[in-house]
Amino acid sequence: MDSRSSGVIALPDGPQLQNAVGAANETSGPRTVPGRVIPVPASVSPAMQETIAMPYRDSEWRLDPPDAEGWRQAVAGLAAHTIPAIKKIRDRLGVRVEPITVAGVGCFEVHPSEIAPANADRLLVNTHGGGYVFNPGEACLLEAIVLAATSRIKVIAVDYRMPPDHPFPAAVEDAFAVWSSLVASHAPDRVALSGGSSGGGLAMATVLRAKQEEVPLPAALAIQSPWADLDEVGDSFRTNEWLDSVLVTYGAGPSRAAALYANGHDRGDPLLSPLRGDLSCFPPTILLTGTRDLFLSLTVLVHRKLRKAGVATDLHVVEGASHFQYFINPFAAESQDVLAEIASFLDRHMA
Amino acid sequence: MDSRSSGVIALPDGPQLQNAVGAANETSGPRTVPGRVIPVPASVSPAMQETIAMPYRDSEWRLDPPDAEGWRQAVAGLAAHTIPAIKKIRDRLGVRVEPITVAGVGCFEVHPSEIAPANADRLLVNTHGGGYVFNPGEACLLEAIVLAATSRIKVIAVDYRMPPDHPFPAAVEDAFAVWSSLVASHAPDRVALSGGSSGGGLAMATVLRAKQEEVPLPAALAIQSPWADLDEVGDSFRTNEWLDSVLVTYGAGPSRAAALYANGHDRGDPLLSPLRGDLSCFPPTILLTGTRDLFLSLTVLVHRKLRKAGVATDLHVVEGASHFQYFINPFAAESQDVLAEIASFLDRHMA
Repeated sequence: MDSRSSGVIALPDGPQLQNAVGAANETSGPRTVPGRVIPVPASVSPAMQETIAMPYRDSEWRLDPPDAEGWRQAVAGLAAHTIPAIKKIRDRLGVRVEPITVAGVGCFEVHPSEIAPANADRLLVNTHGGGYVFNPGEACLLEAIVLAATSRIKVIAVDYRMPPDHPFPAAVEDAFAVWSSLVASHAPDRVALSGGSSGGGLAMATVLRAKQEEVPLPAALAIQSPWADLDEVGDSFRTNEWLDSVLVTYGAGPSRAAALYANGHDRGDPLLSPLRGDLSCFPPTILLTGTRDLFLSLTVLVHRKLRKAGVATDLHVVEGASHFQYFINPFAAESQDVLAEIASFLDRHMA
Repeated sequence: MDSRSSGVIALPDGPQLQNAVGAANETSGPRTVPGRVIPVPASVSPAMQETIAMPYRDSEWRLDPPDAEGWRQAVAGLAAHTIPAIKKIRDRLGVRVEPITVAGVGCFEVHPSEIAPANADRLLVNTHGGGYVFNPGEACLLEAIVLAATSRIKVIAVDYRMPPDHPFPAAVEDAFAVWSSLVASHAPDRVALSGGSSGGGLAMATVLRAKQEEVPLPAALAIQSPWADLDEVGDSFRTNEWLDSVLVTYGAGPSRAAALYANGHDRGDPLLSPLRGDLSCFPPTILLTGTRDLFLSLTVLVHRKLRKAGVATDLHVVEGASHFQYFINPFAAESQDVLAEIASFLDRHMA
């Protein structure tokens, strides 16, 4: 489809456009940015280009179920689509998955084909992404499988309860119960925690909760594109709007998932929006994001806040990547590169 | 001026816009992004908000002098505007500046009001930004003054030769001559190098040249929003186009400055485009950029390349900031925060 005919692009490139945009930005205030067709960047590998070029996924970014039953169907529909893709990645990476129960919570034990010698007694706990709503059961395994393989470490993936049946604080309760149980039976300095997107927010909330309850904290934290605030906090919600092909716009999927999960609770609660919490207790933390990520700003704001709190924190940004695309295509050179950063960071900070 | 009347914004926000943009992005390929009015982010301090809100600077981003004399006038005109602003910052920070000559090159010795005890025998050399064309003489002092004050270290600012009279490789020759001379008379492990924008590219080129010539390398490198490739390399040249209120678009100022500086030389030469060089010799490096920086991708690409080469490299990103705005308003809390990262990084890596 010609984007010009859609009424989305206003003016052709050239001096006329420079004049119009210049005139619209000659005073202090908001920035006026013209409609554009932005090419797939030449600055990344062909594999990452293919991922960046992917169209919006219409079944996800605009989902707007009318009621709880509609949400259940949407979640099941997406899982049916996701699970086969995850199984392909699992098989390609030679990872083995086993369902287990920890502290009464459904989990998966995820075994890489080979555990690194240094990781023999180490454990990584993962809380999955999906807007706190999506990816139940085996659909929760993408990050756990990828991290098990790239870090060559055993991973426990937490299949925490979710809305519409179990809104906040069920997810935090489940993640905290699993965490507490695991650090009671493992040396805490050999257990790390990871999470991406909503799972990144949840992992951060789990640290805050563990601190409150005086339960041992993780030896290290690996956070990817964290949903660290449920409100539209961060410049990239606007600057990367429509450009991030995964999340697309806060006004569609994320705002609806936030409402469903928060379920009327105060979003200022750090267990819902950990960016607003006191992060000074945090263990060494590695953060990933992409330049087109709708959560670029959230990731940057978490980085700054942790650094100011004196926490050892590293930030890694993937050129051109929309939200979570380093997990969506874990085989691209750019993804392998930043996933290797996680492996190295965990190794450096675990006993 | 109403941006709508300029023809820049196509459709009002809402379901109609979601439909149109969704339709334009339903196939694989380039991303169609509608025209938008992007607010000043609420996620930064009032001081940084004021800087982010600043209009395009029409005298700079669209400069297109017809000949060498036109360039000379443009450079002088901008300097006349810049120097008083720099002097205000100098006085507010209590920094003292003294013109000197090093290896026949005009320089400035920049003294903070107080040198940190650990920095008594240390030196920071700075190559200024300005597209390799702008900021001669006292106009070169912005970064040197800010870094002297925030790192409490003596800085040598290099007033290297520039086009139209002295295109590439004059700048590299001058920076290298100053560097060689200084490390001949100072312990190299107590001398660091910094540079931002074109000065970041130049600092990187100086390291490559020093390596070639077997001259001691810096103990550490502090690079801000580096112009690490003279071509339009990096996704943010498109994604942050029109959004970065300082550089605005590669098609205006940067492409003209690149042509004037390169003067027909092969831009693949790592001394012109150090991103294309072998960076494995680099010392520990700290990188800064902003989420709206036209050079966000260049900074990220330099970070990834250095990390892959095994160089100790930290990346810090300022929320909402366009190109160089952490220097343009060094007093904003966000600027102070990342400038303190430079101070701490230099301290950690210098003998």
